[in-house]
Amino acid sequence: MQIAVLLYDRFTSLDAVGPFELLSRLPGAETVFVAREAGPVRNDQGNLAMVADRSLAEVTAPDIVVVPGGPGSRGVMRDETVLDWLRTADASSTWTTSVCSGSLILAGAGLLKGRRATSHWMALHNLTEFGAEPTGERVVFDGKYVTAAGVSSGIDMALHLLGRLAGDQVARTVQLLTEYDPQPPYDAGSPDKAPRELVEYWRARSAQVL
Amino acid sequence: MQIAVLLYDRFTSLDAVGPFELLSRLPGAETVFVAREAGPVRNDQGNLAMVADRSLAEVTAPDIVVVPGGPGSRGVMRDETVLDWLRTADASSTWTTSVCSGSLILAGAGLLKGRRATSHWMALHNLTEFGAEPTGERVVFDGKYVTAAGVSSGIDMALHLLGRLAGDQVARTVQLLTEYDPQPPYDAGSPDKAPRELVEYWRARSAQVL
Repeated sequence: MQIAVLLYDRFTSLDAVGPFELLSRLPGAETVFVAREAGPVRNDQGNLAMVADRSLAEVTAPDIVVVPGGPGSRGVMRDETVLDWLRTADASSTWTTSVCSGSLILAGAGLLKGRRATSHWMALHNLTEFGAEPTGERVVFDGKYVTAAGVSSGIDMALHLLGRLAGDQVARTVQLLTEYDPQPPYDAGSPDKAPRELVEYWRARSAQVL
Repeated sequence: MQIAVLLYDRFTSLDAVGPFELLSRLPGAETVFVAREAGPVRNDQGNLAMVADRSLAEVTAPDIVVVPGGPGSRGVMRDETVLDWLRTADASSTWTTSVCSGSLILAGAGLLKGRRATSHWMALHNLTEFGAEPTGERVVFDGKYVTAAGVSSGIDMALHLLGRLAGDQVARTVQLLTEYDPQPPYDAGSPDKAPRELVEYWRARSAQVL
């Protein structure tokens, strides 16, 4: 079982590391970070480089593909080398997944046509441009396509996937070992719950953020 | 405002990236990954290298120190170069923080003597060896020392800290932008909630895991 996590310039680090940390604990799984070329890839804020151990050309048939989001997704959506890799990987994958605006990259590759999907709340409306049906849910399964909402939601996605891949007991084990018992001190994590003025302020600036 | 996140061989990646992703969104903050030497540092599973952009010698007076946990913490607890750096950084820091078994590193540096602190549930008991008072809470503030429980808890810690640093509205903004509205499909994220046999199985193996 091979899990490939895609990196690209200006990805959001938690989008990638959240599901990575949980999925890579699947017994027997080999998890690998991949990018156009092997080597360090810098995040959206420019203050963290993560190393892609393999180039896309070296990893052609992963069982699970994870595509993080980030401001760089806008460029990757038009990068035919990456899109071709995604289409090829998807042809033999068991699960093709994304976090945040990573779903726009999947959509850009033509993989979400006619499918229900989610994305960061500020990017949701862009899914329709590619024939996907946006939903406001946190984790959306449609066939083998699994999309998660913004940044932190990839952790929830990973737990859902672990349950499907290996059963509830393995998923609970990973939850216990990563002590995922969330206790946020605020309740502003979705546009339905955050103060309305905050949501409106950021919605108006979504093009600059994502 | 400078935030330094410590990396060391066999750290746990989500311990570092969870609080990093949220804290680095603090307006005006500069966040930097540091290690004994600048360059790539590999995680506990060996399948992810993150780059420390600076050596310890280059970052001597950060305002906030973040120490992740991981199996490598056992070695770092006895690495006088890192412990000396921590003591020096702590002498002028506003907040000295840890996630997971990172609190054992702070304790090893002598910084948690007589203080309430937390850690991964499997490492909690080790805190007493260094004169700290373990608590089972998810995020513990004692003076300027902030410790968080296992792996994923650094995200909650970061939200608490953002509130103290910049007020509730900034913390809520970061929660909204990272869409941190957790909806885990299981409720097994703490030893109080997970099936008892799972907790006992892993407690007996804690020395091999952390």
